[in-house]
Formats: sequence, C-alpha cells, structure tokens
Amino acid sequence: MQRLNVELGARSYPIIIGSGFLGAPQQLLPYIHGRQVCIVTNETVAPLYLAKLIEALQGFNKLDVVELPDGEAFKNLDTLNRIFDVLLEKRHNRTTTLIALGGGVVGDMCGFAAACYQRGVNFIQVPTTLLALVDSSVGGKTGVNHPLGKNMIGAFHQPRLVLADTDTLNTLPARELSAGLAEVIKYGLICDKPFFYWIEENLQRLLNREPEVLAYAIERCCRNKADVVASDEREGGRRAILNFGHTFGHAIEAVQGYGNWLHGEAVAAGMVMALELSRLRGDIDNDLVERLRQMLQIAGLSQRAPVGMSAASFLQSMQIDKKVLDGKLRLILLQALGEAVIVDDTPREMIMDALRNCGAE
Amino acid sequence: MQRLNVELGARSYPIIIGSGFLGAPQQLLPYIHGRQVCIVTNETVAPLYLAKLIEALQGFNKLDVVELPDGEAFKNLDTLNRIFDVLLEKRHNRTTTLIALGGGVVGDMCGFAAACYQRGVNFIQVPTTLLALVDSSVGGKTGVNHPLGKNMIGAFHQPRLVLADTDTLNTLPARELSAGLAEVIKYGLICDKPFFYWIEENLQRLLNREPEVLAYAIERCCRNKADVVASDEREGGRRAILNFGHTFGHAIEAVQGYGNWLHGEAVAAGMVMALELSRLRGDIDNDLVERLRQMLQIAGLSQRAPVGMSAASFLQSMQIDKKVLDGKLRLILLQALGEAVIVDDTPREMIMDALRNCGAE
Repeated sequence: MQRLNVELGARSYPIIIGSGFLGAPQQLLPYIHGRQVCIVTNETVAPLYLAKLIEALQGFNKLDVVELPDGEAFKNLDTLNRIFDVLLEKRHNRTTTLIALGGGVVGDMCGFAAACYQRGVNFIQVPTTLLALVDSSVGGKTGVNHPLGKNMIGAFHQPRLVLADTDTLNTLPARELSAGLAEVIKYGLICDKPFFYWIEENLQRLLNREPEVLAYAIERCCRNKADVVASDEREGGRRAILNFGHTFGHAIEAVQGYGNWLHGEAVAAGMVMALELSRLRGDIDNDLVERLRQMLQIAGLSQRAPVGMSAASFLQSMQIDKKVLDGKLRLILLQALGEAVIVDDTPREMIMDALRNCGAE
Repeated sequence: MQRLNVELGARSYPIIIGSGFLGAPQQLLPYIHGRQVCIVTNETVAPLYLAKLIEALQGFNKLDVVELPDGEAFKNLDTLNRIFDVLLEKRHNRTTTLIALGGGVVGDMCGFAAACYQRGVNFIQVPTTLLALVDSSVGGKTGVNHPLGKNMIGAFHQPRLVLADTDTLNTLPARELSAGLAEVIKYGLICDKPFFYWIEENLQRLLNREPEVLAYAIERCCRNKADVVASDEREGGRRAILNFGHTFGHAIEAVQGYGNWLHGEAVAAGMVMALELSRLRGDIDNDLVERLRQMLQIAGLSQRAPVGMSAASFLQSMQIDKKVLDGKLRLILLQALGEAVIVDDTPREMIMDALRNCGAE
C-alpha cells in the first residue's frame, strides 16, 4: 500500500494506492463524517464493484446509489440533475458524503454535484479506470460538458480522499487501458524525463497489467500531478502544463462528437501534434516525436488526426477552448523532454503546418 | 456616497451605495479586469436600466447581454444554461466579467453562472430591488432552485464589487419594496436592537421611499450582514442566523409554488412564526410579537400562514430544508430582541402550536 498527500492547506487530502480495498471499510470510514452516503456510479461499473463497496459501508443509516448511463455523451447538466434528484428525494443533507465509483466521467460529475449540492458537501473518489487513477481523480477539477465545449461548466472541489484500488484495472477494457496510458506518457513528457524512459522500457508490462508495474506508474503519475496542483491549485499558471496535448485533443473530441474518441485517445493524438509543433519551433528534434509515435503505436493509440478532419476545423474548435486568453491561443509545448512551457505566440501558420504534418487535411 | 468593505481576506470586496451610478463608468471600470463583459438581466429590468449600464461600458470589445424571464419560477438549471449558451456562443473566456443587473433571482443565477463558467470567472452585482440590495447581493451565496427545494444547487462565489444605486428603487413595485422591508426588519430582530426601534419609527418614510432614509437602512443592513458573513463565510455556524424566518418562509414558498409569494413576503410570515415559537419557549414576550405584526401590517405584509396550509405540511416541507442536520430540525429563534440563537431541540409539538397560532391549519 502506498500513500501520498496532495498538499493544499486546509483542503489537503491523501491518495491511497493498493489492492483489495473495495470491500475493506477501514480505508474509507475515517473520511466519511456524517451518517449519510450516496454512491454515484454508472451502469458498466455497478455490476462489477458496487456490491463490494456497499459491503464496506454497512451501518450507515442512509446509503443511496445513483447509477448513471455510461459515457462522455452523458456528461451534461441533465445527467447531473439526476444526482440532485436522488439526493433531494432521499433527503440527504449538508453532512452527506458522495462517493464517485467509476472513471473520469463519473468522478467529474459526482465531484461537481458535491461542489454544488447545498453549496458543497464531502466527496470521495474511487477511480476504476487507469485514466481516472492517474488523472481526473487528482486535482479537484470537476464539471460537465456543454454542446459548445468540453468541461465548460464546473468547479474546483477537492475530494476528501482518493482510494485507488488497482484490482479494478483487471476488468478494464484494453481500449481504456491504452487510453489511460496516454496520460501516463504525458507525465514523462511534461515533467519527468526519467519516467519517460521507464515507460518506454516497461510499456509491454503495463499493457500486460502486471500489478506492481501498474502500481508504480500510478503512484508516480499521482505524485507528479499532486506536485503541480499543489503549486497552482486554481490553474493561474504552471498547472496548465497538465493540459499538454489536451487543446488539440479537445478539438478532436468536440468535432468527432464526445464519446467517439475516448479522451485519452484524443490526448494521444493531441500530444503528437503538440510535439510536432514544438519541433517546428526548433525546441526538440524529430527523434523524440518518432519515439512518442512508436510508443503510442505499441499501445494501440492513434498518432494522427481523425480521417477527414481539417486543420481549419481544429483551429475553429480550439478558439473556444478555455486555454484562450483574450483572443490569443495559449498552447502547452515542450522546450525539451520533461520540460513543458506555456506559449502564447505561436504563429497560426505554424500550427496549421503541425496539424497537417499529423494528418489533418 | 457610502462605501463599506466585506472583509474576506483575498476575496474581500467593496459595497458602494449611492445614486446616479448606473451610467457612470468610474465606479465600475476598476473592477473589470479583462476586455469581455456579459450583462445578465431580466425582461422587466432591461427596459429600465440596461441602456444606462451599457453606456457606462462603452469601449469593451465584447459586450453581450443575456435577458432572462422574470421570476423565481425560472430560477433553475434550464434558465442557467441560457447564460452558458450565450457565453459560449459569443466565445467569452476565463477573463470575462459577468454583471448581474436585477433582483435576487438574477443575482443568484448570474453569480452561480460566474462560479461555474470555466470553473469560475469574475462577477459584479448591480442590485435593483430592495431585497437584493440588503440581502442577496452580500455574502456570496449563489444558486438555483430544484423542484424539491429552494437554493439546493449552488456555490459560494463572492462578487468583485456590489454597486448599489438607490435610484433603481424609484421604479420598484410597492409589493417588492414591502417584501424587501421584511429583510430590513430581520436585521433589527436578529442582531441590531437599536435599528429595530429606528425602523419602527421610520417605517412610513421608508415606504415613501425617502432617499436618505433608504440609503441609511441599506447601508446598515449591508454592514450587519457583512459582519456576520465575515465571521463565517461558509455558514458553519453564526451565519445561519441570517436565515431567521427563512425555514418557515421556504416552506411557504415551496408549498405555494415559487413565485406566488415573494421571497420577502414568505420571510415576513416566517419571522412571525419564529417569533411566536421563541415566545412559546419563554424567551421573548408577546409584546414583541405584536410589535412585529404591527410593523408588517403597516408595510402591507402578511403575518400569517397562507390560507389552507396545514402545520403538518410546513413540517413536511421543512424537513428537506438545508437547515436540517442529521435528522434534527435546526431553527433560528430569538433569545431576546437583537439576539438570534440557533436551536436544535425544539419539540415538534411546540413547532406545531406556533404554526397554528399563526394561522396554519
């Protein structure tokens, strides 16, 4: 069992990583302050893990479950309202604790519901996908999508605890495991060069789901993310580097329709684009771009723009992304392996070239 | 012109009270940091004041307006989404400033939109009703209603500035002026005995809208509220006294349907109920209850439960109110004039008696 703390003053919280946690109340109970609990999960995860989690929560006088439909397409205000419906119908009060059991979509919606219900209640993350384990469960970003933009409606709301049980990865579809690996590789690229080399060497073992290799990668990603978040909780500056590949990736998701490309799949292609753009700026050489492409290929991830998507439609979509400040397009690029930078002044034509070099029309 | 500060550390902000502000940019501009502004108002207020406010905002390269339907019945997630629609269609980014021009409903929804849009943007309150001037524009509570409860979905999000222009009260319907006076009287009851006597003496002048009398009352209410909020920003304890009369009032609003009784009208009747209950507990004498009834009558406000509403339906509705902690009904009562207390242990029968003494069936 590994334990690390996300240091955010009064909002600090632990991430506990290990296996066999789900049915074991001793990890969970110290972080539930009232006598009411509501588990938010989805129709895919519930049959796998809900019974075990409920087992750990015997003895609460109010234990309710909200089962959401599965997928990014349902990450919206209407679905969010279903959580509020249950909380109010079952009369949960301000002392309730919401537990997110699922991937990033469940975590983001449950967290946002916890941020808004009666202006803020406790919540706990129990992530069940690699992507959620290494990314969305750390950092306090919560929210839903709007038809005109991803994660445009949300709040910063820190969990009280993140309980990362690597057992849940055994049932994860291969496609989602790969999508999660895109975010794992991201940490190597933006801030942890030795980890990038480690991933390169251990990629096949990660794909084989060797527990100790997975646990190591998860812990290292969480530590990297926790460090970045602790330095900039509300994304005034440095925290933006975590969005490496995401501005391009969000454009892919938005144009293809949420859910057709998994988030991590879109980020994978987006990272190649960001790397190619960094190369065009003269900051990194082609060898690194090729190494990334090679890793993504082994992981079964796309390294190119979706078929038929034009460079112009990328730019169109990106201009509504949150990373646009007063009309300037803010991009996260690399100045070297392991060193991300925030760049405001990339010429439009250079962005178009990078996109075309990555298969955009 | 009067100016007072709500002291909340990094989230401190000024309340500027005076007249002739709306068309005068010098009060407003220092608090708008970016180059984008979106005014949120409603169909009733817009014809009266929107042009003047827009005049003060010449020179912004992006100035959009969202005009909402008027009334508590529209204070919900669907209406909120109309604000997000405009912000995204018009490509407002994180540096935008939202300005709430209107009463409490507009302020609560605009503030909540500002809290959630891209996880939080600036906002400014320009309240145009007495209720909003003395109550909802101070304290950072924002949110929307749910069919099962008022203000159940929301956030704490402090404005950057509250600009209180007493000129706006000249066009306020008499019914809304009276509803606002209920909250003015509340401050006397809960924390400011000399102010209670002052209101008793000056009630007719307030109803006559004498500008200097109104300005004095607004400033004193805001100061009282600012003191309470500064001591307890997120309502862990003392801040709850601001809800005096509100638990009963919310029950009236919920059972009668939002919008049929104005918020202040429901709070007026709710305050009589809270006072009657305080009397039954032996803490205050009947003289004070009668004096409040007398003041409310002069102000044209109801001092009784709605016709046909039963004591049982009050309790039914109150048990879902946010003030319920782990099954105990938390009420704000008076232990003396000007001294509110939070009470958890009132017997159910005593509450029923107080409600019946106030006309509930």
